[in-house]
Parts: sequence; structure tokens; C-alpha cells
Amino acid sequence: MNRKIRMGMVGGSIDAFIGAVHRMAANLDGQIELVCGSFSSNHEKTKATAEALFIDPKRAYATFQEMIEQETKLPDDERMDVVSIVTPNHLHFEPAKLALQNGFHVVCDKPVTFSVAEALALEKIVASSGLVFALTHTYTGYPMLKEARYLVKAGKIGKIRKVVVEYPQGWLSCSLESAGHKQADWRTDPKRAGISCCMGDIGTHAENLAEYVSGLHITEICADLTTFVPGRQLDDDGNVLIRFENGAKGVLHASQISAGEENNINIKIYGEKGGLQWEQKENNTLLLKMLDKPVEILRTGGNGLSSKAATANTRTPAGHPEGYLEAFANIYKNFALAVKAHKEGKPHDYETLDFPTIKEGVRGMLFVEKAVESAQKGAVWVKI
Amino acid sequence: MNRKIRMGMVGGSIDAFIGAVHRMAANLDGQIELVCGSFSSNHEKTKATAEALFIDPKRAYATFQEMIEQETKLPDDERMDVVSIVTPNHLHFEPAKLALQNGFHVVCDKPVTFSVAEALALEKIVASSGLVFALTHTYTGYPMLKEARYLVKAGKIGKIRKVVVEYPQGWLSCSLESAGHKQADWRTDPKRAGISCCMGDIGTHAENLAEYVSGLHITEICADLTTFVPGRQLDDDGNVLIRFENGAKGVLHASQISAGEENNINIKIYGEKGGLQWEQKENNTLLLKMLDKPVEILRTGGNGLSSKAATANTRTPAGHPEGYLEAFANIYKNFALAVKAHKEGKPHDYETLDFPTIKEGVRGMLFVEKAVESAQKGAVWVKI
Amino acid sequence: MNRKIRMGMVGGSIDAFIGAVHRMAANLDGQIELVCGSFSSNHEKTKATAEALFIDPKRAYATFQEMIEQETKLPDDERMDVVSIVTPNHLHFEPAKLALQNGFHVVCDKPVTFSVAEALALEKIVASSGLVFALTHTYTGYPMLKEARYLVKAGKIGKIRKVVVEYPQGWLSCSLESAGHKQADWRTDPKRAGISCCMGDIGTHAENLAEYVSGLHITEICADLTTFVPGRQLDDDGNVLIRFENGAKGVLHASQISAGEENNINIKIYGEKGGLQWEQKENNTLLLKMLDKPVEILRTGGNGLSSKAATANTRTPAGHPEGYLEAFANIYKNFALAVKAHKEGKPHDYETLDFPTIKEGVRGMLFVEKAVESAQKGAVWVKI
Amino acid sequence: MNRKIRMGMVGGSIDAFIGAVHRMAANLDGQIELVCGSFSSNHEKTKATAEALFIDPKRAYATFQEMIEQETKLPDDERMDVVSIVTPNHLHFEPAKLALQNGFHVVCDKPVTFSVAEALALEKIVASSGLVFALTHTYTGYPMLKEARYLVKAGKIGKIRKVVVEYPQGWLSCSLESAGHKQADWRTDPKRAGISCCMGDIGTHAENLAEYVSGLHITEICADLTTFVPGRQLDDDGNVLIRFENGAKGVLHASQISAGEENNINIKIYGEKGGLQWEQKENNTLLLKMLDKPVEILRTGGNGLSSKAATANTRTPAGHPEGYLEAFANIYKNFALAVKAHKEGKPHDYETLDFPTIKEGVRGMLFVEKAVESAQKGAVWVKI
Repeated sequence: MNRKIRMGMVGGSIDAFIGAVHRMAANLDGQIELVCGSFSSNHEKTKATAEALFIDPKRAYATFQEMIEQETKLPDDERMDVVSIVTPNHLHFEPAKLALQNGFHVVCDKPVTFSVAEALALEKIVASSGLVFALTHTYTGYPMLKEARYLVKAGKIGKIRKVVVEYPQGWLSCSLESAGHKQADWRTDPKRAGISCCMGDIGTHAENLAEYVSGLHITEICADLTTFVPGRQLDDDGNVLIRFENGAKGVLHASQISAGEENNINIKIYGEKGGLQWEQKENNTLLLKMLDKPVEILRTGGNGLSSKAATANTRTPAGHPEGYLEAFANIYKNFALAVKAHKEGKPHDYETLDFPTIKEGVRGMLFVEKAVESAQKGAVWVKI
Repeated sequence: MNRKIRMGMVGGSIDAFIGAVHRMAANLDGQIELVCGSFSSNHEKTKATAEALFIDPKRAYATFQEMIEQETKLPDDERMDVVSIVTPNHLHFEPAKLALQNGFHVVCDKPVTFSVAEALALEKIVASSGLVFALTHTYTGYPMLKEARYLVKAGKIGKIRKVVVEYPQGWLSCSLESAGHKQADWRTDPKRAGISCCMGDIGTHAENLAEYVSGLHITEICADLTTFVPGRQLDDDGNVLIRFENGAKGVLHASQISAGEENNINIKIYGEKGGLQWEQKENNTLLLKMLDKPVEILRTGGNGLSSKAATANTRTPAGHPEGYLEAFANIYKNFALAVKAHKEGKPHDYETLDFPTIKEGVRGMLFVEKAVESAQKGAVWVKI
Repeated sequence: MNRKIRMGMVGGSIDAFIGAVHRMAANLDGQIELVCGSFSSNHEKTKATAEALFIDPKRAYATFQEMIEQETKLPDDERMDVVSIVTPNHLHFEPAKLALQNGFHVVCDKPVTFSVAEALALEKIVASSGLVFALTHTYTGYPMLKEARYLVKAGKIGKIRKVVVEYPQGWLSCSLESAGHKQADWRTDPKRAGISCCMGDIGTHAENLAEYVSGLHITEICADLTTFVPGRQLDDDGNVLIRFENGAKGVLHASQISAGEENNINIKIYGEKGGLQWEQKENNTLLLKMLDKPVEILRTGGNGLSSKAATANTRTPAGHPEGYLEAFANIYKNFALAVKAHKEGKPHDYETLDFPTIKEGVRGMLFVEKAVESAQKGAVWVKI
Repeated sequence: MNRKIRMGMVGGSIDAFIGAVHRMAANLDGQIELVCGSFSSNHEKTKATAEALFIDPKRAYATFQEMIEQETKLPDDERMDVVSIVTPNHLHFEPAKLALQNGFHVVCDKPVTFSVAEALALEKIVASSGLVFALTHTYTGYPMLKEARYLVKAGKIGKIRKVVVEYPQGWLSCSLESAGHKQADWRTDPKRAGISCCMGDIGTHAENLAEYVSGLHITEICADLTTFVPGRQLDDDGNVLIRFENGAKGVLHASQISAGEENNINIKIYGEKGGLQWEQKENNTLLLKMLDKPVEILRTGGNGLSSKAATANTRTPAGHPEGYLEAFANIYKNFALAVKAHKEGKPHDYETLDFPTIKEGVRGMLFVEKAVESAQKGAVWVKI
């Protein structure tokens, strides 16, 4: 199969934020071609988006249902292969389901669905479809987090004892939603975001990061969620004690009212023999802190890396910074390669060319549901 | 009164760690003279310490009781003015009490006592003595934390919403206590350290920092304490959710098994209008993060500082790094000035030349007691 | 003209380094489509590259001459619009010349040519062609350097007094060229690289950065160039004193034997009222250091930026790191927009959507020539 | 000899800057006692300083000559042992000479004298006196620079190829001297500072650092010195190409008009096998960059240090930052120990407990003289 993977997009009209990010990520490695879309509930906006993206106007569909229906009818050498879903949370499940049921692989923004029920339902649909499903938990696309995961798995830092994971943002410190800010609007709206704002939007990133790097499941949490901004309907801050299956403990906190913070997701993980530290601000650096040795600075593309995954997901020599879009593109590239392998009936190397799947999506939704449950009961311990 | 303050020391023989730190801190500004001591329960060791410190052998006392008794008999122009207590936790209360009861001002290492009961008793003794009592919570001696406290108090960052305070260390990742490590030995021994190792030793520093900078009391905590190292009798790690009197929330975690961490105490505090960030590793920097402005780097001795306290506790021009000993020395210097003022019947400027007192000592002991109580009940919320 | 710009590439076969970088940069924003190429002097390798890139095998040309000849014959709606040249230095001039003479816009890797003579000749060809010519001095693509240039131009830091620009690398610390390392091989070969290795390859980046940010020409230099690795034919290190047209002074040094350095290009620029500091390692940060104010941290996509150029060349919200490929992509995107404007007979906004041109190419070649002349005379002052 | 070293001070009245720094440095380790002084040419100011420092008013001398004369007459168990000289440059030689000729050891601020002639004369006097002479080039007191020197000497990074040393300051960006700023006033006055301001005051620090860490002499320089501030009589900025005895090359620049810089002295040194990097801003960190290994973060008091000198000059466990005063105190402490050894007729361990001496003083003065000579000839190469 010597051609690019053809992609249709649901959501992501020209005035949206995350749609453009998905497109750049899909573009970067030249493995994917955007051929159609239903970018907005407003068909005019969809058409304008298609034009701006140099897409055939005939393939600027009014609805995702229409897109899937029409594309299904196209000949093999034209039809889209995959659907990318970049809508708000309440609009993930239906297009994902329809796409999978019609034979299209799916890449979907996170959190995977509106509710745990939807997530579990989708998990079954993915399984029965046999198709590829990717979830864009961007941060696990960073090469240095792949290295961290590998080092933990290889036992380098010993049995894990403690994980501290943070995702502080400050952008919702004021009530942007009442000022007409589109991103703030839907994220703080229970009808579109679900039962949580902060935990759903970025707490899930933190949870995903903790489980990805540690290779451990969080089994119990105690979550103190707060809505600080008057009039807001959902949480904008959360502090969570966490316990892992192996007895490790930790802290997870996420916030959208940490004034002055950008997108400062970071993780520190400690084992019996050493520790690891990573933060998005310096995403190309992973600190390895062994007991009784000087701290080592592991670098994207640099000396002394252990994992094939870090190398396979790096594009430039050490010192030429890779960033957020490259991490995002790793998910798209690996998804595209998995789709290609699927089409060719070949195996995909999920160890080296990994990406988050429906499994991580379900974990995230469970985390959100349990965090909200814990908080509503007064911040008590609940099992996941 | 134109002379140095004369000091006697309890504990701190030449092979101890913190005694030497106290002495350097007391030396730095030339306001204090060490004239006598009861440095060890072993009189030979006390004598050797006195010799190494150029102290008159006659004033190398066998016990603190003897020191206080004999010094009391000395003439006015020889007698020590203050007692510095640098023993393990279980040996704070008695010498402090005796010193105060005999008219000597006291500077004491933290945590202030072995138990809350002792702390409360000591609080009364201090009050009735009318003497000066300083507690060496070193970190509040840093100029940039004084600036932070001032900015919060002045309303610069608005009403406080969130505080994240961490004190990770890694030095107790292995069982040093079973290898004969003196510092590890007493800190992990309930008979000498009290009911907690990690919370008592460094959790109190974190708690003190949070209350100092925020100007708020912690009113409720949920503490998940763990002993990770097999055979250890006390906690070596603790993750704590915290709530403040004004409705602010936060996270406090402290650890002695965070492998690879040195003494990485740090705090982030967020208000409605901005945030502040400080870490010991770069103690001369305070980040001020206002909503809608670029982050500003406030620096010890640098441009644009607001507080008199920061300036008054700084010794060198910006860019000549001050450090831990200077912060420690600020406590000693301010204590010495308060003692001098007391002797001269003058007021001391506790705003500008501040130091922790018995009040902070009691807060710390309450925090430890409540953290242990919370943990023993399964990490539930308890009020302080 | 509602379509992507069509691009042909000269050089950049699948085993080359910089070709892949150019392609990712061209892909990112979805403005450019790679339609043909003469990727290698080996036609088989060109064909394999075309296949890997999903390019029509008929447009995998044996030579750049053939590519230009054949593409010229194609109908308007198929023919490439621009040629991207990513060959070693000695193979820039001829394809650039031929492309321009046949009406194709050109984007070319740096240094622009093999010699000053070629650069000056090419300058005339560009001028007479009336076509768009872009030079990929990547670093000026970083948003924070665009902000720095703007701030200097707007007089924010006052009249410039001093510029310190560094580009240390360590990768040529050993004789990689004798170990068959392809990139090392041609860069150290006078027949392909020209009269300089270090100054030509990265000294020009430093020179370009200094002139770009300061808005000033370097008028005089004193260059101490050295070949440290035995057997190497060209310089691998250079220390240069520089003087600017307005009386400012400075230092430029570049090195390929600074062991342990990655690609640590950085610049500090000081005026009468303040200073600016940027380094590639933290490319999303620009420090603004005004006299008598705290240092401000300006951030890609962050608060308080002054320039339209920074914003227009940023893709993600503050805190989602952009990197080297995004900077590179800014050159390609702005080039594509300029080509599009040219085709539509509209003006291009060179202030906001800037990219390096033949002018910067000539400056770079002059710098190299004069640096080598200075060094050969014993590191004496020469005028540029 | 079981007592503190007794010190007299020349210069450093209460309104001076560096005198207080010297006193704190001398105090810190409790090895030195300030017993007398001639702190100012104004006797009243000297008396006031003595009072503030709790010094016997009888030992507040009108002139340094009187101090030396009177102290000489005192009995053995009272007389000062050493003289500390903290006056402006033109007042170093005479008191140093007189002190040495009367049997007093000397510690002196840098640059050592007003001129090379004086430095060479003093070198002879020191030699013939057989006494201890220390020069307070503070920066070599930092433990991590001692580690760096050791690693270079031990061959860890191989034969040295390149040294980059910088000392940017911004405090003289405006004409403080015309605003009555005392420190600016004498430093910019040829009668008191000598032939150079910037090179003499801080260029010598950079030169000292380069030679200290590399263990190599600078043999040739090309210096472009500038006076940027109108009306100033001496240089306030200098950019210098340097060549070392072993063929290594480098850059040294120092500046007092680098707006926004504090005291950002830093050094990078590259050998055939690796590199080292240190900066005052993070003085407790030394980066070790070996070819083909991850960069290691060596830390004051931390894991994996190689040198006895680093350990012997460290006071606190890793992570409790030491700073400028501790570095300064290392010079005083080691000087005191050398004086003590001298008095006891024992050898001093100059490898582990090192401090700068008259030798470094002469090197510094030669550097200044040659830099000015080079600059006056148009920035040409001159030999040192």
C-alpha cells in the first residue's frame, strides 16, 4: 500500500483550536492526507474550512453521518481510511461508533467520551470492529516520556514507591465562559464537557501520564475538587491523593486556576533505586536520579538513551528542540502506521510505535467518575 | 549595650551536623559570641568540642543543667545571654524550660518539642518568662520568601486559592539507620524523634512555609503517610491534602524516599490575580506570575522588590548568591537583635526582622499530631 | 489560487539528514505539496526516495536539469511552482540559477552558495527574475527571536552597545569524517563545503542571528579560526571579535569541538536601556532585562508580547512548546505565502511573515570569506 | 596554638561594600577574630566602625601605619596576626608592604595592586618575608570550581581545546559616578583604579577563573576595550580573544554595561574528551559533558565528586545552597589555616585548602596591562 492514509475530520472548523493542532500533527510526517470533513454543525463554516484547507468542496459534508455515508460509497482509491474526531466531549461517541461500524479506523481527542458508560460501550465496539483506535493523550507522545516508561519497565529505578504528577494551568482563573470564550464555554458546560471540567480536561492527562510512565494502575483515590470561580458549574481545580496497585503512593493535582501557569504538566516518579523527572516546559529533558550517582540529563536524540521507542519517535538531532506538535504527530504517525499495517495484514510494533487506545480512554473516564464521586462524598477514598 | 550577645549551646558536638550549622549561622554577622556549651551527653566530647571552638574549658559543661546553674552565677559581664538548643527532638523541652526559667533567652531547633503537650507547656513558659524564643525554621529566613509573604499580605496576587508545597528528600531511601548513620538513627527512632519521622522532620518545614507565605492557617488535613523502607518504625513519606481557613485548598507532600532529591523544598501559591513560585534550589529567585503579564523574576537584592524585610535580610548585591547559611543566619541575627532590644527595653521590629517563634512551634506540632492521626484512621480528614 | 504550492526538491534522499527536515517543515502547515524531486545523483536512490514519499515515479528525475526541463513542460495545473535545494554547498548555485531562469521560485539551504562570487551572481539572478528566494536560516524562524528583533527596532532597549552570539556544537570533536560519517564528510571537505567548515556551517547562523536581531550590519571582524582535530582540512572552531556599524561591539564564537554541546545557539544583546537573551535550548523564552526592573520572561504565545510577527508565527497556546521544526516551518510557510501573493499579484507582508532572502545569503558568504581572510593573516581586523 | 587568628583591617568602614563582605567571610567559620582596624582615612568613621563591630576603641587606628606600629608593640597574646586590606586598588601596595615587613600575614582584595610594577615589587616582598599572602579572587572559592579544576588536572576531559569565560554586569550602564555612587566613583577613576575599570575590576576575575580551572597560562591576547558611557575615563566593556600555552583558544569578555546582568560570571571549558560548565547563578552545579554520555550534574556536597578540595570546602549537605559568602569564607578559612600552620611550623595542604596568592595577583595585573596595551594599539595581539 504505497500511498498516504486518507483522513476525514469531525469538528475542527477554522475558528476552533484543537482541530488545527490535529491537522498539523497529521501533516508533519507526510503519512496522512486530509480528504474530507464535517468540521462544524454549521455547513457554511464547514465549507469555508474545506476551502481554507484546499479540500474538494464536494467532500465538505453537512454532518458526520453524511460524511460516513458518502465516503463509504466512494471507490477504494478515493475513500477515506480513517476518521479524526476533534469535537467537544459529548460529540465523541456517536461519530466514533458510526465510523467504526462502517469500517473506518478512528483517532479521537480526549477524554474519550462523555461518560464511563459511553466509554465502556465504545470499548466493545472497537473490540468487535477489529479496527485501530487512537486517543490523543498528547503527552505520551514525547520521546523522553517513552524513555521514562522504558526505564521504569526495565527496572532501572527499582520498584516504584511514589509518583507526583501535576497539571497546573491558569487560563480559567477568571470567568472566560461568561465573556464568550469558546474553549472555556464548552469545557465548563456539563452538557458538553460531562461531569467535570478540570479533572476531565487535564486531570485525565495527569492520570494517563502517571499510569503510562509507572506501568501501574491507580487503584484508589481521594479527590478534593473545587470550583473557585463564582458561577462556574464544574470543578476548576482538584487535589488528589493516589494509591497504586503495587503499594506505591502519590499525589495528582490539576488546576485551571493556578494563575500564571501555562500548561505545566510534569511528573516525578521515585523507585527504590532512583527517580525520574520530566516537565513539558523542557520536554526534551528527562532527569535520571540514581541513588549515589550524579543526576544524568537524558535528552531527546541525545547520548545514552536505552529505549527504541524514544529513538523511533524522534525526528531531529539532539539540541534541535522538538515540542508539542511533534509529540502529537507521534500519535498520528504511529496510528497511521498501525492502520497501514492493518490494511496490509501485518503486525504493528506497539512497543516502539505506541499510542494511547480505547483502554487508556476507559481508564481516564473511570478516573474522572471516581474523582467526582470522591469529591461529592467529601473527599473520601474510593476504589477505581 | 555595645557588645556581642553571648551564647551557650546545648547539643552540637563536633561530630553532629546541625550544631555546626547553627554556629556558622550565629557567627556570620558578628552579633553573637559562643561562650559556653554542653555539647554532648559525653563530657569528654563536650570538652573536645569546646577546644575545637576555642571555648574556655571551664565553660565546657557536663550537662545543660550544670551549664545553666553555673552561668547563672557568673557576673553580668561574663554570663551567657541566650541558650541555643540543637539536640534531637526529645531533648528540646527540658533545656528550653530551664533556660527560660533562669532568665535566658532561647533559640531552638525544630520541631519545637517531642509532643504537642510539651509544645503547649513551653508556650506558656515562654509567655510567662517574657523572654525571646526563636525557632529555626530556616526556610523562612530566605529573603525571597519574605518578599513572597509581603506580596501576599499586600494583596498583590489577590485572595489565595491554592497552595502547593513540597519537601522531597531521598536520603532515607535505604535503611541508613541500620548502617549506623547518626542522623538517620535518631530521626527514625520514636523515642527520640516522636510520633513521626518525615512529617516531624520536614513536613513541619513545609507546613511552616505554607502558613508563613500565605498568612493563612491550615484548618483541615487528610494525610496519607507511609513507611516504605522495611523495618523502619516511623513514616518516611507523606502526601497530604490541605484546606485553609479562607477556603483555599492545597497539597503538601514531604518525603525522605524520593530517590535522587536533595533538599528540594518549594512552594507555589496561587491567588485570584496571580501566582508566586519559589524553590530552595534557586533560593534567590521568586517568580511573580500575574494574570495577563509576563512572568517577572524577582531576585535577592534585585530590582523591583516591595518589602523592607527582603532588603533588611540581604547581605550582598544581586547576583552574588546567598544561600542556606545566610537564611539560617537571618534567624540568628534577628533573634540577637530582638534579645538586644529586650535588654535595652526597646521594641523589636518583628515585621522586618522576623523569625519563627513558639507560636510556629505549636502549629508545627499540631500539624504532625493531626497528620499522624489522619493517617492512622486511614487517611481521613481531621481538623487542626 | 486555492491550492497548495507545488514543490520539487533537489537533494535530500532518504538517507540524508536535512532533506527530511525540509520536508517536515514544508508539510506542517499544509500549504505545500511535494510533487517531484531529484533527490540524489544516484537515480535509483531518487526513485526509492520518491516511493517512500508517495511521489509519482515519473516525477523522480535523474538530475535537477531534467527536473526543471520536464516540469517546465507540464501543464499549469500540474507543474511545480517552487524548487527546494537541500544539497551540499557546492551544489546550490547551479540548480538555483536554472530554477530561477525557468520561472521557479527557490528555497535554498544555507550557506547560500560555495563562494562570495556565486552569491553575488545569484543575487543578480534573483533580482532580474523577480521571483521569490528564501534561505533557510532556521533560527530566525523562532517567534521569540522575531519578538526580540521587534523590541530592538522599536527602541525598547535603547541604542545597541553589545552583542554576544554563540553557536557551540561538539559533534565534530573526533574525526567522524574518517569514520565515514556522511554529514561530517562533506562539511569538512573544501571541495564541497567551500573555504570553511565551522564558520560556513554554523558561524553563518550566528552572524545571521546577530544581524537579524540587532538590525545592524557587522562592519569589522577579527577572527581566530582553528582546526583542532588532526587531519581535518577546514576550521572546526572560531572565535571572532565583531564591530557593528553603529559603534556596538561584540563577540561571536562558533565551534564544532565544544565537547558535550548539542546545538546551543544563543544570543545576548545589550542596549543603553536594557538587554535581551535567547537560547535555542529554551527557544520559547525570551528574557527582557530592563535596567531598574525585574527581568521579564516573554514566552511564545504568552502575555505581553509586542510584535505581530511573533504572534503570526506561533501555532500553539503558551506552554505547549514549539521547536526547531516549527521555526523551520515558519520559513516555508512564509515563503509559500509570498509565492502565492506573487502569483496573485498581491503584496506580501515581509515585516510580519518574514524569511531570510538572498540578501542574508550574501551577508553570510561575505562573513565567511572575511573570517577566513582575517584568520589567515593571523587574526587581524578586516572590514566586511 | 589553640585560639582564633587575630585580624586587623585596612579600609572597610561601615558605609563601604566589600569590607562587610570580608568580615562576614572571616566570621563564618569561627577561625578569625577581628581585633583592630584602620577602616577609613577619616578617624571618626573608623571609630564609629569599630564601635559597630564591638572592637576596642583603643584599637581603632587613625592610619594603617599607626595600626601596624601600635600592634607590633602589643604583647604576643594580644597582637593581631594578619592584616586584611580592603581599600581601593591604589591603596593596596603600601599597607601590604608595611604589614609584611612587620611580620604580619596579609589577605588583600583584588586586583592585587595599582600597577604591574607594584605587583612585581610586592611579589618579592612576599617571597622574602616568608609570610602567607592571600588574594580574594572569590570565585575560586566555590567548591564546584575546585572540582572542575581537579577534573581538568586529572585528565577527565582530555587535553583542553577551548575556554569561554564571561563576566557580564550591567550596573555601570549609566554614569553612576556622576551621581555620587561611591563604588562607581573610585572604580572609574584612573587615579584610584589604575589603567582600567572593567578589565581591572572583573576582567581579572575572568582571567583568574580561566587559568585556575584550565591549569593553563594565557600567553597571548587580542583585546577590544570600549568606554560606552559618555564622560567615563576608563573602559566599561572588553572583548578579548585568548590563546593558551598548550594551543587552546578561547574568548574572555567582561562588561559593566551589559544591561540587566547581575554578576553573571561563568565558564565553559572543552577538552578532547568532554566539557565542563559552571556559572555563579547556579554555583552549586557543575555540568560534566562527556562525549557519548549523558550530561552529569555534579553538585556541591553531592554524589560522585572526585576532588578532596570540593569536599573540604563544603559546609552543608547537597541541596542546602552555599553561595558567595561561603566561597569567600573558603579563602579566609584556608588562609587562616595556612597562617596557623605557619605559626606552628607545619605544612599547609595547598592542594585541598587552596587560595589565590601573590602569583595570581601578578598574573592578573599582567593581564590588565596587556589588555589595555592591545586595545590602545587597535586591538592587536600581544603576548603576556
